[in-house]
Amino acid sequence: MNRKLRILLVNSNTSAATTQQVANAARALAPDVEFTAIESRCGPAGIGGRADVVISALATFEAALEAAPGHDAVVVACFSDPGLAALREVLDIPVVGIGESAYLTASMLGARFSVVTPGLRVAPMVHEAVQAAGLVSRFGGVTLIDDGVIQAENRLPVLIEGVARAVATQSAEVVVLGGAVFAGLAQAVAAESDVPVVGSVEAAVVQALALCRLQAGRATIGSYSRPRRKLMTGVSPVVAQHLAIGG
Amino acid sequence: MNRKLRILLVNSNTSAATTQQVANAARALAPDVEFTAIESRCGPAGIGGRADVVISALATFEAALEAAPGHDAVVVACFSDPGLAALREVLDIPVVGIGESAYLTASMLGARFSVVTPGLRVAPMVHEAVQAAGLVSRFGGVTLIDDGVIQAENRLPVLIEGVARAVATQSAEVVVLGGAVFAGLAQAVAAESDVPVVGSVEAAVVQALALCRLQAGRATIGSYSRPRRKLMTGVSPVVAQHLAIGG
Amino acid sequence: MNRKLRILLVNSNTSAATTQQVANAARALAPDVEFTAIESRCGPAGIGGRADVVISALATFEAALEAAPGHDAVVVACFSDPGLAALREVLDIPVVGIGESAYLTASMLGARFSVVTPGLRVAPMVHEAVQAAGLVSRFGGVTLIDDGVIQAENRLPVLIEGVARAVATQSAEVVVLGGAVFAGLAQAVAAESDVPVVGSVEAAVVQALALCRLQAGRATIGSYSRPRRKLMTGVSPVVAQHLAIGG
Amino acid sequence: MNRKLRILLVNSNTSAATTQQVANAARALAPDVEFTAIESRCGPAGIGGRADVVISALATFEAALEAAPGHDAVVVACFSDPGLAALREVLDIPVVGIGESAYLTASMLGARFSVVTPGLRVAPMVHEAVQAAGLVSRFGGVTLIDDGVIQAENRLPVLIEGVARAVATQSAEVVVLGGAVFAGLAQAVAAESDVPVVGSVEAAVVQALALCRLQAGRATIGSYSRPRRKLMTGVSPVVAQHLAIGG
Amino acid sequence: MNRKLRILLVNSNTSAATTQQVANAARALAPDVEFTAIESRCGPAGIGGRADVVISALATFEAALEAAPGHDAVVVACFSDPGLAALREVLDIPVVGIGESAYLTASMLGARFSVVTPGLRVAPMVHEAVQAAGLVSRFGGVTLIDDGVIQAENRLPVLIEGVARAVATQSAEVVVLGGAVFAGLAQAVAAESDVPVVGSVEAAVVQALALCRLQAGRATIGSYSRPRRKLMTGVSPVVAQHLAIGG
Amino acid sequence: MNRKLRILLVNSNTSAATTQQVANAARALAPDVEFTAIESRCGPAGIGGRADVVISALATFEAALEAAPGHDAVVVACFSDPGLAALREVLDIPVVGIGESAYLTASMLGARFSVVTPGLRVAPMVHEAVQAAGLVSRFGGVTLIDDGVIQAENRLPVLIEGVARAVATQSAEVVVLGGAVFAGLAQAVAAESDVPVVGSVEAAVVQALALCRLQAGRATIGSYSRPRRKLMTGVSPVVAQHLAIGG
Repeated sequence: MNRKLRILLVNSNTSAATTQQVANAARALAPDVEFTAIESRCGPAGIGGRADVVISALATFEAALEAAPGHDAVVVACFSDPGLAALREVLDIPVVGIGESAYLTASMLGARFSVVTPGLRVAPMVHEAVQAAGLVSRFGGVTLIDDGVIQAENRLPVLIEGVARAVATQSAEVVVLGGAVFAGLAQAVAAESDVPVVGSVEAAVVQALALCRLQAGRATIGSYSRPRRKLMTGVSPVVAQHLAIGG
Repeated sequence: MNRKLRILLVNSNTSAATTQQVANAARALAPDVEFTAIESRCGPAGIGGRADVVISALATFEAALEAAPGHDAVVVACFSDPGLAALREVLDIPVVGIGESAYLTASMLGARFSVVTPGLRVAPMVHEAVQAAGLVSRFGGVTLIDDGVIQAENRLPVLIEGVARAVATQSAEVVVLGGAVFAGLAQAVAAESDVPVVGSVEAAVVQALALCRLQAGRATIGSYSRPRRKLMTGVSPVVAQHLAIGG
Repeated sequence: MNRKLRILLVNSNTSAATTQQVANAARALAPDVEFTAIESRCGPAGIGGRADVVISALATFEAALEAAPGHDAVVVACFSDPGLAALREVLDIPVVGIGESAYLTASMLGARFSVVTPGLRVAPMVHEAVQAAGLVSRFGGVTLIDDGVIQAENRLPVLIEGVARAVATQSAEVVVLGGAVFAGLAQAVAAESDVPVVGSVEAAVVQALALCRLQAGRATIGSYSRPRRKLMTGVSPVVAQHLAIGG
Repeated sequence: MNRKLRILLVNSNTSAATTQQVANAARALAPDVEFTAIESRCGPAGIGGRADVVISALATFEAALEAAPGHDAVVVACFSDPGLAALREVLDIPVVGIGESAYLTASMLGARFSVVTPGLRVAPMVHEAVQAAGLVSRFGGVTLIDDGVIQAENRLPVLIEGVARAVATQSAEVVVLGGAVFAGLAQAVAAESDVPVVGSVEAAVVQALALCRLQAGRATIGSYSRPRRKLMTGVSPVVAQHLAIGG
Repeated sequence: MNRKLRILLVNSNTSAATTQQVANAARALAPDVEFTAIESRCGPAGIGGRADVVISALATFEAALEAAPGHDAVVVACFSDPGLAALREVLDIPVVGIGESAYLTASMLGARFSVVTPGLRVAPMVHEAVQAAGLVSRFGGVTLIDDGVIQAENRLPVLIEGVARAVATQSAEVVVLGGAVFAGLAQAVAAESDVPVVGSVEAAVVQALALCRLQAGRATIGSYSRPRRKLMTGVSPVVAQHLAIGG
Repeated sequence: MNRKLRILLVNSNTSAATTQQVANAARALAPDVEFTAIESRCGPAGIGGRADVVISALATFEAALEAAPGHDAVVVACFSDPGLAALREVLDIPVVGIGESAYLTASMLGARFSVVTPGLRVAPMVHEAVQAAGLVSRFGGVTLIDDGVIQAENRLPVLIEGVARAVATQSAEVVVLGGAVFAGLAQAVAAESDVPVVGSVEAAVVQALALCRLQAGRATIGSYSRPRRKLMTGVSPVVAQHLAIGG
């Protein structure tokens, strides 16, 4: 490892501003790492529902497959982790999602974690994700903050209040800031909070570095082994190249 | 309800042969219902992995949105239920998946259900689906049968043996035949088995009819309420029409 | 199936008024089906505790065994599903309970269901039933409404308020109206609610029809196979006929 | 407590021989206690299915209500604990079941308990009971022994082999002998086994004594508070006296 | 059993006053039993955190090993059960902890138990202990009371209010008083409460008596079998004697 | 971060050879980090039981407190994570355990992880640890290998066979090598295996680095906040300094 590690950050939505924010947070956290940051080419500008996830999962998958060559790991920078499992199946390098990374990291920092996030409709989806991760017995719940936080000049007060509310009402011992749009804010929020605060983009970056260093190997059997080639039609060239013949 | 109910069957893979088999099984089970049967326009010919699910989820979503008008319910005819949650969010009519329907139906027929299915790599995905459905405490596990069953002239002996093995090794009290490719075979398998056998396509058809009759209403809040319109780019016209502005 | 399906509705309590209400709701929902409606010959006029369940389980069992011949399915119309498992063991036709049917049906309509029901003392029993069904990870809890609702002229406002409270305090995405006494009211409640509303009698009727159509077969081994004949004393003739020799 | 404690043992089946065996085991274990032993007046001679449980639950309930006056506690001596919850609701003295007592006691003696019992059809029912008790994460499973053991001259070798098999195949650290018919045998089985062995009747006797001594009080609200009087028809006099008016 | 049973009570903290209170409560509950009461020789005067548990676990282990000879059972009198598993591994007599005993006993007295205890920081530890016991599905939660209760002249009003709050806010059907410092108060609290109240020291005493009478045997394999002798250095003589050679 | 990170490795047992192996593995994995490696001053030479854990928890706690100053993180290098929670409570720097780290890391690499480890008696303890971590739904179980592996010249073949067996019999998709004694071997085992292999020491090192970089903050309330000073007697000076006054 004489050269710098190269990590690909894929913002699952189409907002270049969010991509930039994610990249800035990653670079501040890991100035010794080289980051490439891209966004999905198509799909929603913000991901906040079940259809959004289906659409951005394929967009994320395609964008990541295309840009992955030359990188050591991929970070899916959307709190719903769209396309994460598919990328792990197809790529040979570690792939992490900011949702899963945040849940796992938080569980080392306290007995019970809550997620502070805007968006009433995503709360059940967060619950499903924590359950899929296997960590529901460690989960305090979702503490909702106002959707307006996303456009706010200064998001810190809203986030700090959210963390305090999670502590008071859900007995949270550690809090995850749920969403790529909060990249770079966790340490400032933690400084004003009674419990550790985990930024989800930050958690994914450190977990990607952890897996890069670990070199644990690649499954050749099971649900994460490389797919067998099969007849596939009408998919984009990069997907076809990784998965399909014929067409 | 003076007219016949109309149900849209969406085969998530691109195999017209599978579509035909699904349609035949549905019509045999419900000759009083009008079925439209279509397949995904793009994606894999058979769905057996995590990338396949991502690709066919969007293909299923698009195909179903396009064909749904004029129908009373939609059946997603793929055991992984790709796109199911997204369709429920967007459409105003009931949408069921053959996986979820089979798990729920089986749980009324015995204390513990197993799934007989080919494909070593899908076993963990079935487990994840049962867990997401909330029924893991009722689940006996996956009993694998040889992949060759899909192309076999006569699939009955393999399925009957699989059911018997699920009973003997997993204490199954009811067995689900996992996969659209087994549509129409469950009753013949049940006739030679010691426990009830649930065909997954058949379960979805009867559950679609159940929900049509129930008329339980539509969520206007929560994670299945209709998505708010938002900036969405580069999606197909039918998706754009349901979800997006701009673009 | 040239003849109409015939479904036996067994009200587990002794109130003929409740039986009538259940029958009316079933007939309105399924005018194409022939319903027989009976009540238990003995036991409590309303079921609201653990002793009530033990008493009415046998009464339901006896009443259903006696009246079952000639029917295609049985609905146990009591939210505690008394005698359900016993009837499934003994009868060759599908048997459903309004509790279990409601939980399973609700889980296709939202991420998290709550139960609106009167009766502080039954809340733990509902929780136990959901856990036995295996669906506790999908359960939001019981939202209590005043007992007076049962005698109220107009129950709709109380039920509508209960649903709203379940949404607000338990993040319910779908609500079950718990109890045979609410038969026939769900659609009207749903019309005034933000989430789908599942009537429990209605859910059982549609699930009975689903199982009738499915013809999934009968267990000949396991805990739902027909009991072996054994010495049984002092039981009613119909129970003796199904289960006992000697006496 | 100058007088001896008096415990009522209710054998839920109608076999006087089993009653006698239960009484003998109880007296050997607690010669300082006065035991009354009765059996159900009606129902099956042996309980091995779901209908049996419904029938014997009411028979147990009636028999126990009738004989309870003058006793300090009641033991329901059937591994399915029929009528247990109902008796707790109605009686003011502690009531324990041999199933629940065995599971709770076993969980103090090892990390993981298995149940050795005859009867393929009861295995799912045992699983359901352990889940209802809340102890499924401590449960290794049911290890089946041949039904013939019930009539065997010498049951010890079969039980000892069953315990050894539970240790070898389910990693059991403690084993419960499931069934009233094994009363009095646990210590002899334990003497030949590598792990602690809990007799279910014995566990219930010691737990009954524990609760007698504890004097923890009686619920006046909740699902175990005394039922409110209500219209009840056609029930036996003792049930009527405890539960009903009118009729 | 011609002689009185002898039970060793080990207060895990160093407070002689607490030891005395525990002993008094035990003797009042079981005047027919001989109790020896000791405290840890070192460690914290009150146990209220994770480091406290580590320190007092070894202190409890050492104190109990030293004093155990001649006794029939050991009670670890600290709600965190420090050293409980280790003592079970090493000693041949039953060992119970006041936490585990209380949870198990409570689960026979109602559908859902809560724990009333002071100390915000111990709430997550109680949750972890209930989960380790396997009873989390029966757990209503921790109801916190003010820390000042420990020094209060009259603790009854605080405890009674705590129980009432657990009933009102957590739907508790039975309440555990969490902590050795409440030994002897449960019956008086129960007398003023709507639900049964379980004192944790009292629960442990009755469970110790239950296990003494049961004589269920000793594991010779598995995680509670006696440790193999191994090289151990720098431990106290009594630990060395039980566990070590060399040194 | 101009200086190298400094991580303290604490081997919980007293074997200097194991300490050396752990240090070598850590340095090979992270040559850019400065490691200090120490072992417990007292307790067992190898940790394989419940008493061992109690003894080594305090020894680990004391050793780590003493050596921690000047370091950026602590790794507890024993698969039972003795003293981990206590150190997190007391120290201001991140503390990780090799057990917990391995479980969390593995869960990013496959759907289901197994643990390969020697020692029949530790299997239940591993199960308890996974449950405490919250990951039991992701756990395939413990695959036992012969105890002799610890002294073996060449451990690779035994470990490789163990991994293969975990895949074949527990459907493991990723395998954890359980124990500090396997430090440094995971990559070589992975090279010969069909699934990713996670070394537990290696996982802890990368997670320690992840938490160092994350800087998520310190709890000032809850079960991981710094203990309040209290009366503590007879403890070692370093413990006294961190926890106690008086004495």
